[in-house]
Amino acid sequence: MSSDRKIVKPKPLSGFPEWLPEQRLVELRWIDTIRRTFEAYGFCNIDPPSVEDVDVLVSKGEDADKEIYGVRRLGGGEMRDEPKIALHYDLTVPLARYVAQHFNELSFPFKRYQIQRAWRGERPQEGRFREFYQCDLDVLDTGEVSLHFDAELPVIVYEILRQLHVEPVTMHINNRKVLQGFYTGLGIADVVGAIRILDKLDKVGAEEVNRLLVDDLHIASAVAAQCVALASIRTPDGSFEERIREFGVHSELLDTGIAELKFVMQAAEAIPAGVVFADLSVARGFDYYTGTVYEGKLSAFPGYPSVFSGGRYDNLVGGFLRQNLPGVGMSIGLTRIFSKLLAEGQIAVGASCPTQILVIQLPETPREQAMQTGRALRDRGFNVEVYHESKKIGHQIRYATRKGIRYAWFPDPAKHEVKDLASGEQSPADPATWAPGK
Amino acid sequence: MSSDRKIVKPKPLSGFPEWLPEQRLVELRWIDTIRRTFEAYGFCNIDPPSVEDVDVLVSKGEDADKEIYGVRRLGGGEMRDEPKIALHYDLTVPLARYVAQHFNELSFPFKRYQIQRAWRGERPQEGRFREFYQCDLDVLDTGEVSLHFDAELPVIVYEILRQLHVEPVTMHINNRKVLQGFYTGLGIADVVGAIRILDKLDKVGAEEVNRLLVDDLHIASAVAAQCVALASIRTPDGSFEERIREFGVHSELLDTGIAELKFVMQAAEAIPAGVVFADLSVARGFDYYTGTVYEGKLSAFPGYPSVFSGGRYDNLVGGFLRQNLPGVGMSIGLTRIFSKLLAEGQIAVGASCPTQILVIQLPETPREQAMQTGRALRDRGFNVEVYHESKKIGHQIRYATRKGIRYAWFPDPAKHEVKDLASGEQSPADPATWAPGK
Repeated sequence: MSSDRKIVKPKPLSGFPEWLPEQRLVELRWIDTIRRTFEAYGFCNIDPPSVEDVDVLVSKGEDADKEIYGVRRLGGGEMRDEPKIALHYDLTVPLARYVAQHFNELSFPFKRYQIQRAWRGERPQEGRFREFYQCDLDVLDTGEVSLHFDAELPVIVYEILRQLHVEPVTMHINNRKVLQGFYTGLGIADVVGAIRILDKLDKVGAEEVNRLLVDDLHIASAVAAQCVALASIRTPDGSFEERIREFGVHSELLDTGIAELKFVMQAAEAIPAGVVFADLSVARGFDYYTGTVYEGKLSAFPGYPSVFSGGRYDNLVGGFLRQNLPGVGMSIGLTRIFSKLLAEGQIAVGASCPTQILVIQLPETPREQAMQTGRALRDRGFNVEVYHESKKIGHQIRYATRKGIRYAWFPDPAKHEVKDLASGEQSPADPATWAPGK
Repeated sequence: MSSDRKIVKPKPLSGFPEWLPEQRLVELRWIDTIRRTFEAYGFCNIDPPSVEDVDVLVSKGEDADKEIYGVRRLGGGEMRDEPKIALHYDLTVPLARYVAQHFNELSFPFKRYQIQRAWRGERPQEGRFREFYQCDLDVLDTGEVSLHFDAELPVIVYEILRQLHVEPVTMHINNRKVLQGFYTGLGIADVVGAIRILDKLDKVGAEEVNRLLVDDLHIASAVAAQCVALASIRTPDGSFEERIREFGVHSELLDTGIAELKFVMQAAEAIPAGVVFADLSVARGFDYYTGTVYEGKLSAFPGYPSVFSGGRYDNLVGGFLRQNLPGVGMSIGLTRIFSKLLAEGQIAVGASCPTQILVIQLPETPREQAMQTGRALRDRGFNVEVYHESKKIGHQIRYATRKGIRYAWFPDPAKHEVKDLASGEQSPADPATWAPGK
């Protein structure tokens, strides 16, 4: 307690969110719900290291090198067999590496979920963090992956969001084959380049996209206008097909894409109206998507980045394995959703601890009586604290109230009593039979 | 599938353990048990970032600088407001920083648990990893922290180990005041230095400790011998006191230490005989311990490093806060225990997924029938997969067997049947009422 001691009170690290106990308690409950739902559909969990070999990350990195966080001992110096490592920036690259490495020990179709942190060295802004939780689920197989999985993932994700009361949300589904087939039908040579430009529609607007298509890809202005017009199609059902057909553009790939998208939209009928849309503006920047693509938004906050996303890919393990592994997956941006709804006051934060019952230390009662009561209630599945300090009863009650503990238990051997601190009601109770109210 | 593609099959990173799905499933169950038990005693969870400001880590680092993993963008270059960060090497420093930073928003006594990874850039060896899970629980307060907490922590930790079948274990408890009081009573000036040397007893042996005490601290050989002799005391109960008293050494601190250790040993009587020992050889290297110290061993593997440890400290937040915060805590080395028992074949690893029931796709039955059956069973709380690919029934059953899925469900609308793949028995069943066997 010397006053001349140098005190440096720690400050938050920008981009590294941290929650108070009462907030973390809700986040944990969210993670439990997500995990339980993933498992209800038979997905297994994997938990790869936080780091990967730098070459693994950079090889898949799509120009993300600058944002990758390298990891290196502060002490420096050489250590034998020391790998060059960096923190993963998503959960997809670790999945690809994991499946390639353990290929012979896994059963396919491989359905896995992953709930982990990921790291990106970017400038923090609203919804963008340097460290954040992602919740991913993917299905990979050695042969074909049934389109039924494309249809099932939105149902699973919606079920989670509904349970978490993350509403209203909108889910935007497209199929890259529709875009590629349409562009091919229009005679565009650089289809991938065109998709990359269209992906910017949200950010830069229709006029700029039009200009980029004309200037960068040398596409005729009228053709570029059709690309932009296609992106404006958004329907709550399979009716997007008629809208596409009006353009009179034809290609086999377009037909396949339309059929696939209609299949997924039909399965999505299990989700309440107003949530799912076939949205032809969704392109997803990543080149590895080849079919269905998903994107989710908090509809109350239109400017906020997408809160879940994913899609289908033809091969996730290129470069790691001689075999192709197609699949389909979806990723929920847990920290992005949680931090926003917390900041908006839309998450009900309550108790700061999981304790349900505080056993009071009565001055005239032997201590062992309180301990025994605690054990008896704990054995019945309750979360129970025995107050350990020698403090006045009023002080103990205030401790319970401050932490949001609902019940205070008076372990008087002659007559146990329990007080409901919410209602103020106090009544006799038996540790062997008592049940909480409400 | 081109054969000229360059394939680099990924290799494991040394020191970064990674489990197969069936192993991870058990690890997750372990984490659930640990968490549930921590919460049953009213500890709240916190989940600080994986990184801290480098200065925060180094200031508390006890010469650990060389092992700290710094984190830096690979791209390099300057970014405004970019903190200098490193991965935490334990969960205690983040706790200290967290409590100091959020001091006014927390309720005391602050009882928290933390289940997180930590990172150390050391050379991997058996039981030592570069990335590992720790499970910590600590109680901190602004004033006194009741000795009842010192007595409760071993009970909680033992309850966890028993549930996980981590047996046989031994728990070694000492009190730094006993050592300090004894050394003071012997007239030793550099008490902290003596404790640091005694802490090496396990590694270097009695003769070398004797030599170090004499040569480095200029302690008389006969006195040094008494220090070493004290460390040989190990009793399953409070009888260590008589053994200490035989030395005829006296000091007030020694009396306090003996009383505290006896108090903790008495509470430990709730733990089966043969587990807990008052062990005067336990010193714990860290200088911040000031009272009770704990150390746990897997008794079947005497050479293996300690698998849990902890102790009492007078002040955890020195340098961060003007106020002193005493506390007591314990840390379970989850990865260290799990990896060892796994390697020794002592962990029963079963199914590679959480699925309980696979709903078979019958060729002559409408698909919706299978989907509906899946939903009905899922609504009743079962983990259920519907087989999505169009494969023969035998293939679907083999998939279930390979993944360790116990039940195959045949959703024939006229007559539902379920096959127990463990017994081979097949019988009629109703999705609305069916219950698993055993």
